[in-house]
Parts: sequence; structure tokens; C-alpha cells
Amino acid sequence: MADLAKMAGVSKITISRALSDSPLVNRETRERLQALAQEAGYKLNVSARNLRLRRSHTVAVIVEMKPSHDRTMLDPYPLVLLGGISQELTAHGYSVLLTTRQGATAAAVQAADGLILLGQGSRQDAVRRFDKLGLPMVVWGAPGDEHVVVGSDNRQGGRVVAEHFVSLGRRNPVFVGNPNHPEIFERLTGFVDALAAHGIKPLLIRRDEFTLASGGDAMHSLMDRAVPFDAVFACSDLLAMGAIRALNKLGRTVPGDVSVVGYDDMPLAASFLPPLSSVRQDWQEGGTLLARKVLAMINDQQEQSETLPVELVVRET
Amino acid sequence: MADLAKMAGVSKITISRALSDSPLVNRETRERLQALAQEAGYKLNVSARNLRLRRSHTVAVIVEMKPSHDRTMLDPYPLVLLGGISQELTAHGYSVLLTTRQGATAAAVQAADGLILLGQGSRQDAVRRFDKLGLPMVVWGAPGDEHVVVGSDNRQGGRVVAEHFVSLGRRNPVFVGNPNHPEIFERLTGFVDALAAHGIKPLLIRRDEFTLASGGDAMHSLMDRAVPFDAVFACSDLLAMGAIRALNKLGRTVPGDVSVVGYDDMPLAASFLPPLSSVRQDWQEGGTLLARKVLAMINDQQEQSETLPVELVVRET
Repeated sequence: MADLAKMAGVSKITISRALSDSPLVNRETRERLQALAQEAGYKLNVSARNLRLRRSHTVAVIVEMKPSHDRTMLDPYPLVLLGGISQELTAHGYSVLLTTRQGATAAAVQAADGLILLGQGSRQDAVRRFDKLGLPMVVWGAPGDEHVVVGSDNRQGGRVVAEHFVSLGRRNPVFVGNPNHPEIFERLTGFVDALAAHGIKPLLIRRDEFTLASGGDAMHSLMDRAVPFDAVFACSDLLAMGAIRALNKLGRTVPGDVSVVGYDDMPLAASFLPPLSSVRQDWQEGGTLLARKVLAMINDQQEQSETLPVELVVRET
Repeated sequence: MADLAKMAGVSKITISRALSDSPLVNRETRERLQALAQEAGYKLNVSARNLRLRRSHTVAVIVEMKPSHDRTMLDPYPLVLLGGISQELTAHGYSVLLTTRQGATAAAVQAADGLILLGQGSRQDAVRRFDKLGLPMVVWGAPGDEHVVVGSDNRQGGRVVAEHFVSLGRRNPVFVGNPNHPEIFERLTGFVDALAAHGIKPLLIRRDEFTLASGGDAMHSLMDRAVPFDAVFACSDLLAMGAIRALNKLGRTVPGDVSVVGYDDMPLAASFLPPLSSVRQDWQEGGTLLARKVLAMINDQQEQSETLPVELVVRET
């Protein structure tokens, strides 16, 4: 459609309108553009087209995985991200179909007017799969592919924690998380780059889960290997809390011996003992933005990816 | 169907299966029960029947109203209620269609396997309207009609606050909220009954909104009328917080001059200054129960209404 717009010297929106017989394009132009499309062999994605014409006023929100008793539905994202999305969509008269990737084969998803994908997964397969539906789609995560992505500035998140550790005189920091996850890869990159400027190379402890148990486990593994470390950057608040509890058990004080910073600044972080330092993401705003962008795209507007700033909240750890 | 089951001396499930040609009922019995149904003039709700046979693996969650910038989508319920519902449904392979009552005319809702209605509204019209769809339905709210209702023990909530005020020596309590709302009517009833046992009659200040502004406004109206009062039971934490701020401005101390108790024990309540006393409802558990009951009903099991206990959390106000 973009090529066609260039060829005809009109906007993509005009092409889209002309091909859908919209009265917003005058008849003459409409017929000229339709003829051009046919000549150029432009193949309309008919099923996507039909679906878009038959508005269901529903946006599907697809979460990465089926939840279990150990993992919440939205993990690692908090409920408030869904709250921001739902509030904005329902305020505009849209229903929200919340489903998992496994559930997303259902006819209901294909009948949605648009998709919001929460998380890109460790590989991009899932994103591509949904892309094939030809629906307006916005992804929460890290920028870097051809999709419209809304996400926090994870690189900045990594950088501010690195600067914080350096300012405290820490020289042996550890990063806990799984960089196969695109957002966590960004945090690690920011962290490593900022530390490199001070001649410091952090240690990476790869952990898939975002749980208390996993954070504790990471500390035990470090202590078992007798690796020297004086700071821990954990990729979730639960990981950080688990790390602190384990360090205390192992006879190391926080923040005396080891500084710890978590991620997300969940409500529990401030009331944790000791109150947890953490990188705050604005989830409500993120959810609102995802919804606004998908609604704009449903209305044939072009949207760009957008990155939200993060903030280090320094508490006692 | 219940009458038919009695007539035939079999269970309701067997009737249901026989009428849907389920192989779980042997052919002879099936034909006998189908003939009986026809004789008895049993009228199958065909469209509901069809919808139920064509499983969409979707449960629609219907919230009371379209949100605005002033009112959140779930108001007066918190996001965690939706979290409990969604977690349980997605864990069982179901998608969740979140919609408002206005949006609930959409075909998608009618294709759902079951409905969860959040709130009964001030009249029961809405509940009856959805009842007509013939789908398994569970309602969050106050018990009292023929539907399966899950809710907190609002009457107990009113009672414990009354007892608390009496134990503090308060003699002139005020109730802030709108008893047209069935759950709030229950709270008021519990409050009034428990106070009556001590010869105390509370004052009712009717307020529709659950906002800070509305709580402040209620206090101004009391002070303007020079009504004596020494305790405020507000039907939401925001109402209570607004009341406290207004009382302070008007030169009355909390809890010195006036005791204040809110409702819901939202996360903010504990970190409010002064920390707010509030009646806690277990929203996560409530959401899980709603989901479990609707799933059981989708699988042709009978379910009963259920009331969850509440707890007064006494903090500084």
C-alpha cells in the first residue's frame, strides 16, 4: 500500500480509503486509484479487509503465556498495564478480549479490530504470527523491529542503575535476569555500557523467572562459587526481594555489604523491609498509550513507536 | 428443566444431556426423555442452546458503566477483582471479553459461553436483561435475587464499623454513600441495626460518587448545617480520604474530634497520612470465585451464591 501511495503521489490513507470505496475520497480519484492498484497487481488481503470493514469494536489483548499458580497471567507485567489499556478502550466504546497466545487462535481474535501484544517473547515468532492477521497491532516491549512498539526506556533503566552503583563506590556488580527477553536485553546493554565507561564489567546471572525463589537461588549460586560481588541489579522487584532475604540468611547485609536495586517499583517495594530501591515504569500511561495507538491505527492513522522514560527510586537498599 | 428432571426421576444434568443428544446418555433414555420433554411442552431456548453447543471458550465480564476521566472502568470495584477473574479464566484456557453494559449488545457477548456481571446497578433491570440471553451467569454484588451472586458480607461490614464506633464512645455517627446501590444498602442495614442495639440512630448523607471530592463535599454540607457528628463511615476509601482532608481544613481533627472508617482497604489506605482505618474485602479471592462458578455452570454444574467475610482494619483514623 505504501508503494502504491508513492506511485500515485497520494497518502497511504487516501489509498486505503480509495480501495475501501470510502466517500472521503472523491469518485474520480477513487476509480483512478483502484485502476492503478489493479494494474500494479496490488493484492488486497481480502480476509483482513473484510474483518476491518466488519467492525466488532473489540481489541484483543494477547498475553504471553497461560498462567499457572506460580505465574500470574500478565507476568512479568503488572495488572495496572491491563488497567490502563482497558480503561482507555472501554472509554472509547471498545470491548477488550483478553487472551493468551494459545487461546489466540480463536475466531474471536481474528474478528477483533486490532491487537495489543503484551511482550515479544524471547523470539519474534509470536509477533510475526499475529502480524499475518493483517490487523492494526501494537506491541508492548523493546523497539527494534518494524512493528509499532510502546515500551519503557529499558536502556536508560540499566544506565541509571549503573551510575547509582558507581556513585556508591561499587566495583563488582551483578545483573540477574534473562537477556533472551528483549526488554531485559536492553536493560543489560544500558547497564554494561554505562559501567564500561568506568572500567567495570558486570557479572551476568541468567535467571528466567521473576520470582522470590529465583532471586534467592541466584544469590546462593553466587556465594557457592565464592564470586566477589557488592551490588545486585535484579530484573524484577520480586527477584530483588528474594535476593535480599537470601543474602541476609547467608550473613551479608543490605545495603552494608551489597547494594540491591529491583525493577518495576511495585506497590510492595516501598513497604518492604528494608524499603527497596527500584526502577519505576509508568504502567498506567503505557497501557493508555497502547490503547490510543491501536485505536488510531484502526481509524487508519499511522502511528510511531514510543518509548517512555523510567525513573530510579532510591530507597534504603 | 428442573421440573422435567423431577418428572422423569433423573438429574437435571441427564435431562440437559439428553436434550442435546449427548452420547453420555444411552439412546433409549435419550429418546424417552426427549419424548417426555415434547409431551410436557418443554420449550428449549434454541438460540441459547446453540450458543452453548458452539463453545467459544470466552467468558464476558460486563462492567456497569462506560468509564470517563473521573470514573474508572471498574468503579467502585478495584482492578484486582478483574485480575482474579482473568487469572482463573485464562488458566483454564478461556479468554475474557471485558465490556461495558452499553457495549454488551455486541454479537461477541452473545457468543460467550458465560457471563460475569460486576455490579447489579441501582435497579435490577440490567441483570434481568442479561438473564434473557440464557447463558450461565454469575453476578458480583449483594445476595437477594434468583441469580448466583458472589459478594462480600456487606452487612457484616456495616456491623463491625458500628461496633468499632460504639467502642470508641462515638454517639453521633454519619453514613456516607448511596443506598440505592444494593451492596451499600446492605452496609447501611448492618450499620443501622448494630447501632440501634445501642440506642443510636446514624445520619445518612447520600452521595453517589466514590471520589475524594464527594467525601469533602459531604463534610462541608454537614458543617454548613451545623449537624453534630463525631464519626464518619464512608463507603469507599476515597470518600473517607476526601472527608478527612475537608475536616482538617474545617478545623476538626481526625481521629481526635471525628473517627473515620473507609471501605475496601485499597493499597493507598495504609500509606495515607494518617493511615486510614478501612473495611477490607478480599477482591482477588472474589474474582477467583466468580470465575470458578461460571466455569462450573458452563460445565452444567449447579452453583450457589456465596458470601465472603470482610475484616475491619483499624489504623489511625
